Amino acid sequence: MRAHKPLLIVLSGPSGVGKDAVLATMKELGRSFHYVVTATTRPRRTREKNGVHYHFLSPEEFQQMIDGGQLLEWASVYGNYYGVPKDEVARGLAKGMDVIVKVDVQGAANIKKLLPQAVFIFLLPPSMDELERRLRQRSSETVTVLALRLMKAKEEIESLPLFDYVITSRQGELESVVGQIGAIVAAEKCRVRPRVIEL
Amino acid sequence: MRAHKPLLIVLSGPSGVGKDAVLATMKELGRSFHYVVTATTRPRRTREKNGVHYHFLSPEEFQQMIDGGQLLEWASVYGNYYGVPKDEVARGLAKGMDVIVKVDVQGAANIKKLLPQAVFIFLLPPSMDELERRLRQRSSETVTVLALRLMKAKEEIESLPLFDYVITSRQGELESVVGQIGAIVAAEKCRVRPRVIEL
Repeated sequence: MRAHKPLLIVLSGPSGVGKDAVLATMKELGRSFHYVVTATTRPRRTREKNGVHYHFLSPEEFQQMIDGGQLLEWASVYGNYYGVPKDEVARGLAKGMDVIVKVDVQGAANIKKLLPQAVFIFLLPPSMDELERRLRQRSSETVTVLALRLMKAKEEIESLPLFDYVITSRQGELESVVGQIGAIVAAEKCRVRPRVIEL
Repeated sequence: MRAHKPLLIVLSGPSGVGKDAVLATMKELGRSFHYVVTATTRPRRTREKNGVHYHFLSPEEFQQMIDGGQLLEWASVYGNYYGVPKDEVARGLAKGMDVIVKVDVQGAANIKKLLPQAVFIFLLPPSMDELERRLRQRSSETVTVLALRLMKAKEEIESLPLFDYVITSRQGELESVVGQIGAIVAAEKCRVRPRVIEL
Protein backbone atom coordinates (compact mmCIF):
# COMPACT_ATOMS: atom_id res chain seq x y z
CA MET A 1 0.00 0.00 0.00
CA ARG A 2 2.87 2.34 0.86
CA ALA A 3 6.14 1.65 -0.90
CA HIS A 4 9.06 3.23 0.87
CA LYS A 5 11.97 4.64 -1.05
CA PRO A 6 15.31 3.10 -0.15
CA LEU A 7 17.16 4.65 2.79
CA LEU A 8 20.65 6.09 2.99
CA ILE A 9 22.17 5.00 6.31
CA VAL A 10 25.23 6.93 7.47
CA LEU A 11 27.21 4.93 10.04
CA SER A 12 29.76 6.96 11.94
CA GLY A 13 31.65 7.24 15.22
CA PRO A 14 35.21 7.71 16.47
CA SER A 15 38.16 5.75 15.09
CA GLY A 16 38.46 2.41 16.88
CA VAL A 17 34.79 2.20 17.86
CA GLY A 18 34.31 -0.77 15.55
CA LYS A 19 32.59 0.57 12.43
CA ASP A 20 34.40 -1.90 10.17
CA ALA A 21 33.68 -4.83 12.51
CA VAL A 22 29.98 -3.92 12.55
CA LEU A 23 29.85 -3.76 8.76
CA ALA A 24 31.74 -7.05 8.46
CA THR A 25 29.22 -8.69 10.82
CA MET A 26 26.30 -7.26 8.84
CA LYS A 27 27.75 -8.79 5.67
CA GLU A 28 28.44 -12.14 7.39
CA LEU A 29 24.84 -12.23 8.63
CA GLY A 30 23.67 -11.54 5.08
CA ARG A 31 22.03 -8.21 5.85
CA SER A 32 20.79 -6.91 2.53
CA PHE A 33 22.26 -3.45 1.92
CA HIS A 34 24.30 -1.79 -0.74
CA TYR A 35 27.58 -1.33 1.15
CA VAL A 36 29.36 1.75 -0.16
CA VAL A 37 33.10 1.34 -0.69
CA THR A 38 34.93 4.51 0.37
CA ALA A 39 37.80 5.94 -1.66
CA THR A 40 40.99 6.74 0.27
CA THR A 41 44.59 7.73 -0.15
CA ARG A 42 45.68 6.04 3.09
CA PRO A 43 48.04 3.07 2.84
CA ARG A 44 46.41 -0.32 2.53
CA ARG A 45 46.60 -2.38 5.74
CA THR A 46 47.48 -6.09 5.61
CA ARG A 47 44.36 -8.12 4.77
CA GLU A 48 42.57 -5.15 3.20
CA LYS A 49 41.51 -5.61 -0.42
CA ASN A 50 41.27 -2.86 -3.01
CA GLY A 51 37.68 -2.32 -4.13
CA VAL A 52 36.38 -4.33 -1.17
CA HIS A 53 37.46 -2.52 1.99
CA TYR A 54 38.34 0.73 0.21
CA HIS A 55 39.12 2.01 -3.23
CA PHE A 56 42.82 2.74 -2.62
CA LEU A 57 43.75 5.75 -4.75
CA SER A 58 46.86 7.81 -5.28
CA PRO A 59 46.62 11.45 -4.18
CA GLU A 60 46.43 12.37 -7.89
CA GLU A 61 43.55 10.00 -8.60
CA PHE A 62 41.72 11.27 -5.52
CA GLN A 63 42.20 14.87 -6.65
CA GLN A 64 40.68 13.97 -10.04
CA MET A 65 37.56 12.67 -8.31
CA ILE A 66 37.27 15.89 -6.29
CA ASP A 67 37.74 18.00 -9.42
CA GLY A 68 35.18 15.93 -11.32
CA GLY A 69 32.56 16.40 -8.59
CA GLN A 70 32.43 12.62 -8.20
CA LEU A 71 32.52 12.57 -4.39
CA LEU A 72 29.46 13.03 -2.21
CA GLU A 73 31.81 14.12 0.54
CA TRP A 74 35.50 13.96 1.21
CA ALA A 75 37.76 14.96 4.07
CA SER A 76 41.35 14.85 5.16
CA VAL A 77 41.78 12.85 8.34
CA TYR A 78 45.24 12.51 9.93
CA GLY A 79 46.82 13.50 6.63
CA ASN A 80 44.92 10.98 4.49
CA TYR A 81 41.97 11.63 2.21
CA TYR A 82 38.69 9.76 2.46
CA GLY A 83 35.74 10.23 0.14
CA VAL A 84 32.36 8.74 -0.69
CA PRO A 85 31.93 8.15 -4.43
CA LYS A 86 28.55 9.51 -5.55
CA ASP A 87 28.07 6.77 -8.11
CA GLU A 88 28.30 4.08 -5.40
CA VAL A 89 25.40 5.66 -3.52
CA ALA A 90 23.38 6.36 -6.67
CA ARG A 91 23.85 2.81 -7.92
CA GLY A 92 22.53 1.29 -4.69
CA LEU A 93 19.49 3.57 -4.53
CA ALA A 94 18.74 2.97 -8.21
CA LYS A 95 18.61 -0.78 -7.48
CA GLY A 96 16.04 0.03 -4.78
CA MET A 97 18.44 -1.09 -2.06
CA ASP A 98 19.06 0.60 1.25
CA VAL A 99 22.54 2.07 1.07
CA ILE A 100 24.92 2.08 4.02
CA VAL A 101 27.96 4.29 4.10
CA LYS A 102 30.66 4.35 6.76
CA VAL A 103 32.27 7.74 7.37
CA ASP A 104 34.15 9.52 10.11
CA VAL A 105 32.24 12.09 12.12
CA GLN A 106 33.41 15.02 9.99
CA GLY A 107 32.17 13.14 6.92
CA ALA A 108 28.80 12.51 8.53
CA ALA A 109 28.50 16.22 9.29
CA ASN A 110 29.22 17.01 5.63
CA ILE A 111 26.63 14.50 4.38
CA LYS A 112 24.11 15.90 6.87
CA LYS A 113 24.40 19.31 5.16
CA LEU A 114 23.78 17.83 1.71
CA LEU A 115 21.32 15.06 2.56
CA PRO A 116 19.61 15.76 5.88
CA GLN A 117 17.07 13.05 4.99
CA ALA A 118 19.67 10.32 5.45
CA VAL A 119 19.54 8.25 8.64
CA PHE A 120 22.50 9.15 10.85
CA ILE A 121 23.74 6.52 13.30
CA PHE A 122 26.54 7.17 15.80
CA LEU A 123 28.52 4.25 17.22
CA LEU A 124 29.57 5.19 20.73
CA PRO A 125 32.37 3.44 22.65
CA PRO A 126 31.26 2.12 26.07
CA SER A 127 33.96 4.36 27.60
CA MET A 128 37.10 6.29 26.60
CA ASP A 129 39.26 3.67 28.37
CA GLU A 130 37.70 0.97 26.24
CA LEU A 131 38.30 3.04 23.08
CA GLU A 132 41.96 3.49 24.02
CA ARG A 133 42.33 -0.25 24.63
CA ARG A 134 40.88 -1.00 21.19
CA LEU A 135 43.10 1.52 19.44
CA ARG A 136 46.20 0.08 21.19
CA GLN A 137 45.31 -3.35 19.80
CA ARG A 138 45.74 -2.02 16.29
CA SER A 139 49.40 -2.63 15.55
CA SER A 140 49.17 0.06 12.87
CA GLU A 141 48.84 2.95 15.36
CA THR A 142 51.93 4.87 16.46
CA VAL A 143 51.86 6.54 19.90
CA THR A 144 51.33 9.97 18.35
CA VAL A 145 48.45 8.80 16.13
CA LEU A 146 46.87 7.09 19.15
CA ALA A 147 46.97 10.28 21.22
CA LEU A 148 45.55 12.27 18.28
CA ARG A 149 42.73 9.79 17.76
CA LEU A 150 41.74 9.83 21.43
CA MET A 151 41.71 13.63 21.54
CA LYS A 152 39.68 13.64 18.33
CA ALA A 153 37.24 11.04 19.71
CA LYS A 154 36.37 13.32 22.63
CA GLU A 155 35.61 16.13 20.18
CA GLU A 156 33.63 13.79 17.94
CA ILE A 157 31.36 12.64 20.74
CA GLU A 158 30.32 16.30 21.07
CA SER A 159 28.82 15.95 17.57
CA LEU A 160 26.23 13.47 18.79
CA PRO A 161 23.34 15.98 18.39
CA LEU A 162 23.90 15.88 14.60
CA PHE A 163 22.81 12.24 14.62
CA ASP A 164 19.42 10.55 14.74
CA TYR A 165 20.43 7.41 16.60
CA VAL A 166 23.23 6.29 18.92
CA ILE A 167 24.27 2.70 19.56
CA THR A 168 26.79 1.73 22.21
CA SER A 169 29.33 -0.60 20.67
CA ARG A 170 30.34 -3.09 23.37
CA GLN A 171 33.14 -5.63 22.99
CA GLY A 172 31.72 -9.00 21.91
CA GLU A 173 28.28 -7.60 21.21
CA LEU A 174 28.55 -6.99 17.49
CA GLU A 175 25.37 -8.94 16.75
CA SER A 176 23.44 -6.79 19.18
CA VAL A 177 24.69 -3.66 17.36
CA VAL A 178 23.66 -5.20 14.04
CA GLY A 179 20.26 -6.04 15.54
CA GLN A 180 19.78 -2.44 16.61
CA ILE A 181 20.72 -1.18 13.14
CA GLY A 182 18.15 -3.62 11.73
CA ALA A 183 15.50 -2.31 14.11
CA ILE A 184 16.28 1.29 13.13
CA VAL A 185 15.94 0.44 9.43
CA ALA A 186 12.67 -1.47 10.03
CA ALA A 187 11.26 1.40 12.10
CA GLU A 188 12.30 4.00 9.53
CA LYS A 189 10.36 2.03 6.92
CA CYS A 190 7.23 2.47 9.08
CA ARG A 191 7.61 6.25 9.34
CA VAL A 192 4.52 8.19 8.36
CA ARG A 193 6.79 10.85 6.91
CA PRO A 194 9.28 8.81 4.90
CA ARG A 195 12.72 10.15 4.20
CA VAL A 196 13.37 10.80 0.53
CA ILE A 197 16.96 10.91 -0.67
CA GLU A 198 17.58 13.01 -3.75
CA LEU A 199 21.11 12.92 -4.99
CA MET B 1 25.96 4.72 29.38
CA ARG B 2 22.62 6.17 28.28
CA ALA B 3 19.56 4.98 30.17
CA HIS B 4 16.39 5.64 28.26
CA LYS B 5 13.20 6.56 30.07
CA PRO B 6 10.30 4.20 29.39
CA LEU B 7 8.20 4.94 26.32
CA LEU B 8 4.48 5.52 25.99
CA ILE B 9 3.29 3.74 22.84
CA VAL B 10 -0.11 4.78 21.50
CA LEU B 11 -1.55 2.11 19.19
CA SER B 12 -4.47 3.27 17.10
CA GLY B 13 -6.32 2.75 13.84
CA PRO B 14 -9.87 2.25 12.57
CA SER B 15 -12.31 -0.16 14.21
CA GLY B 16 -11.80 -3.65 12.83
CA VAL B 17 -8.19 -3.13 11.82
CA GLY B 18 -7.06 -5.62 14.44
CA LYS B 19 -5.73 -3.59 17.38
CA ASP B 20 -6.95 -6.15 19.92
CA ALA B 21 -5.57 -9.07 17.92
CA VAL B 22 -2.18 -7.35 17.73
CA LEU B 23 -2.14 -6.75 21.49
CA ALA B 24 -3.23 -10.33 22.16
CA THR B 25 -0.37 -11.61 19.99
CA MET B 26 2.12 -9.32 21.77
CA LYS B 27 1.02 -10.80 25.09
CA GLU B 28 1.15 -14.38 23.77
CA LEU B 29 4.67 -13.78 22.52
CA GLY B 30 5.62 -12.45 25.94
CA ARG B 31 6.46 -8.94 24.79
CA SER B 32 7.31 -7.02 27.93
CA PHE B 33 5.07 -3.96 28.15
CA HIS B 34 2.66 -2.52 30.64
CA TYR B 35 -0.60 -3.03 28.73
CA VAL B 36 -3.06 -0.31 29.70
CA VAL B 37 -6.62 -1.51 30.30
CA THR B 38 -9.11 1.02 28.91
CA ALA B 39 -12.27 1.97 30.79
CA THR B 40 -15.50 1.81 28.79
CA THR B 41 -19.27 1.97 29.11
CA ARG B 42 -19.83 -0.24 26.07
CA PRO B 43 -21.46 -3.64 26.66
CA ARG B 44 -19.11 -6.51 27.34
CA ARG B 45 -18.79 -8.89 24.38
CA THR B 46 -18.78 -12.66 24.91
CA ARG B 47 -15.29 -13.82 25.93
CA GLU B 48 -14.26 -10.36 27.20
CA LYS B 49 -13.19 -10.18 30.85
CA ASN B 50 -13.65 -7.18 33.10
CA GLY B 51 -10.30 -5.72 34.16
CA VAL B 52 -8.52 -7.69 31.45
CA HIS B 53 -9.92 -6.54 28.10
CA TYR B 54 -11.55 -3.41 29.49
CA HIS B 55 -12.68 -1.96 32.79
CA PHE B 56 -16.43 -2.16 32.10
CA LEU B 57 -18.06 0.75 33.88
CA SER B 58 -21.57 2.10 34.20
CA PRO B 59 -22.14 5.57 32.71
CA GLU B 60 -22.25 6.92 36.29
CA GLU B 61 -18.93 5.35 37.25
CA PHE B 62 -17.37 6.66 34.04
CA GLN B 63 -18.68 10.16 34.76
CA GLN B 64 -17.08 10.01 38.21
CA MET B 65 -13.68 9.26 36.62
CA ILE B 66 -14.11 12.23 34.25
CA ASP B 67 -15.11 14.51 37.14
CA GLY B 68 -12.19 13.30 39.23
CA GLY B 69 -9.69 14.05 36.46
CA GLN B 70 -8.69 10.38 36.49
CA LEU B 71 -8.69 9.89 32.72
CA LEU B 72 -5.78 10.78 30.48
CA GLU B 73 -8.26 11.02 27.66
CA TRP B 74 -11.81 9.92 27.02
CA ALA B 75 -14.18 10.07 24.09
CA SER B 76 -17.60 9.04 23.03
CA VAL B 77 -17.52 6.64 20.09
CA TYR B 78 -20.77 5.35 18.57
CA GLY B 79 -22.58 6.32 21.77
CA ASN B 80 -20.21 4.54 24.15
CA TYR B 81 -17.53 6.12 26.31
CA TYR B 82 -13.92 5.01 26.27
CA GLY B 83 -11.20 6.39 28.50
CA VAL B 84 -7.58 5.80 29.46
CA PRO B 85 -7.08 5.75 33.25
CA LYS B 86 -4.13 7.97 34.18
CA ASP B 87 -3.07 5.71 37.04
CA GLU B 88 -2.63 2.76 34.64
CA VAL B 89 -0.15 4.75 32.56
CA ALA B 90 1.61 6.25 35.58
CA ARG B 91 1.97 2.86 37.26
CA GLY B 92 3.63 1.32 34.20
CA LEU B 93 6.05 4.20 33.72
CA ALA B 94 6.89 4.19 37.46
CA LYS B 95 7.90 0.52 37.16
CA GLY B 96 10.25 1.59 34.35
CA MET B 97 8.20 -0.35 31.80
CA ASP B 98 7.25 0.76 28.33
CA VAL B 99 3.53 1.41 28.39
CA ILE B 100 1.25 0.54 25.48
CA VAL B 101 -2.22 1.99 25.18
CA LYS B 102 -4.82 1.14 22.56
CA VAL B 103 -7.15 3.98 21.58
CA ASP B 104 -9.34 4.96 18.69
CA VAL B 105 -8.04 7.67 16.38
CA GLN B 106 -9.88 10.47 18.18
CA GLY B 107 -8.28 9.27 21.45
CA ALA B 108 -4.85 9.24 19.88
CA ALA B 109 -5.37 12.83 18.70
CA ASN B 110 -6.31 13.83 22.25
CA ILE B 111 -3.23 12.14 23.75
CA LYS B 112 -1.07 13.78 21.09
CA LYS B 113 -2.13 17.21 22.41
CA LEU B 114 -1.25 16.31 26.00
CA LEU B 115 1.78 14.09 25.43
CA PRO B 116 3.32 14.80 22.04
CA GLN B 117 6.39 12.86 23.18
CA ALA B 118 4.50 9.56 23.08
CA VAL B 119 5.14 7.22 20.12
CA PHE B 120 2.08 7.18 17.86
CA ILE B 121 1.52 4.07 15.74
CA PHE B 122 -1.33 3.77 13.23
CA LEU B 123 -2.55 0.35 12.15
CA LEU B 124 -3.73 0.62 8.58
CA PRO B 125 -6.02 -1.91 6.90
CA PRO B 126 -4.58 -3.32 3.64
CA SER B 127 -7.69 -1.93 1.89
CA MET B 128 -11.20 -0.68 2.68
CA ASP B 129 -12.66 -3.90 1.25
CA GLU B 130 -10.59 -5.92 3.67
CA LEU B 131 -11.70 -3.72 6.58
CA GLU B 132 -15.34 -4.20 5.61
CA ARG B 133 -14.83 -7.97 5.44
CA ARG B 134 -13.33 -8.01 8.93
CA LEU B 135 -16.08 -5.87 10.40
CA ARG B 136 -18.73 -8.16 8.86
CA GLN B 137 -17.10 -11.13 10.62
CA ARG B 138 -17.90 -9.54 13.97
CA SER B 139 -21.35 -10.84 14.79
CA SER B 140 -21.77 -7.89 17.16
CA GLU B 141 -22.06 -5.31 14.36
CA THR B 142 -25.46 -4.26 13.08
CA VAL B 143 -25.73 -3.05 9.49
CA THR B 144 -26.02 0.58 10.64
CA VAL B 145 -22.99 0.34 12.94
CA LEU B 146 -21.03 -1.31 10.12
CA ALA B 147 -21.83 1.54 7.72
CA LEU B 148 -20.93 4.10 10.39
CA ARG B 149 -17.63 2.40 11.16
CA LEU B 150 -16.64 2.25 7.49
CA MET B 151 -17.45 5.92 6.97
CA LYS B 152 -15.53 6.77 10.12
CA ALA B 153 -12.55 4.64 9.02
CA LYS B 154 -12.18 6.72 5.86
CA GLU B 155 -12.09 9.88 7.94
CA GLU B 156 -9.69 8.33 10.43
CA ILE B 157 -7.18 7.42 7.75
CA GLU B 158 -6.99 11.16 7.00
CA SER B 159 -5.51 11.56 10.50
CA LEU B 160 -2.41 9.61 9.53
CA PRO B 161 -0.17 12.74 9.62
CA LEU B 162 -0.73 12.94 13.41
CA PHE B 163 1.14 9.66 13.78
CA ASP B 164 4.84 8.80 13.81
CA TYR B 165 4.59 5.32 12.32
CA VAL B 166 2.16 3.34 10.18
CA ILE B 167 1.99 -0.44 9.96
CA THR B 168 -0.20 -2.24 7.45
CA SER B 169 -2.15 -4.91 9.29
CA ARG B 170 -2.52 -7.85 6.90
CA GLN B 171 -4.66 -10.89 7.57
CA GLY B 172 -2.55 -13.71 9.03
CA GLU B 173 0.47 -11.48 9.54
CA LEU B 174 0.01 -10.55 13.17
CA GLU B 175 3.52 -11.64 14.09
CA SER B 176 4.95 -9.38 11.40
CA VAL B 177 3.00 -6.44 12.86
CA VAL B 178 4.29 -7.32 16.35
CA GLY B 179 7.82 -7.52 14.92
CA GLN B 180 7.46 -4.06 13.43
CA ILE B 181 6.22 -2.66 16.74
CA GLY B 182 9.25 -4.27 18.40
CA ALA B 183 11.58 -2.66 15.86
CA ILE B 184 9.98 0.74 16.43
CA VAL B 185 10.46 0.42 20.20
CA ALA B 186 14.08 -0.74 19.78
CA ALA B 187 14.82 2.12 17.37
CA GLU B 188 13.17 4.68 19.65
CA LYS B 189 15.50 3.52 22.43
CA CYS B 190 18.47 4.42 20.20
CA ARG B 191 17.24 7.95 19.52
CA VAL B 192 19.80 10.65 20.23
CA ARG B 193 16.94 12.87 21.43
CA PRO B 194 14.98 10.53 23.68
CA ARG B 195 11.29 11.12 24.25
CA VAL B 196 10.47 12.03 27.83
CA ILE B 197 6.92 11.44 29.05
CA GLU B 198 5.80 13.69 31.87
CA LEU B 199 2.34 12.91 33.18
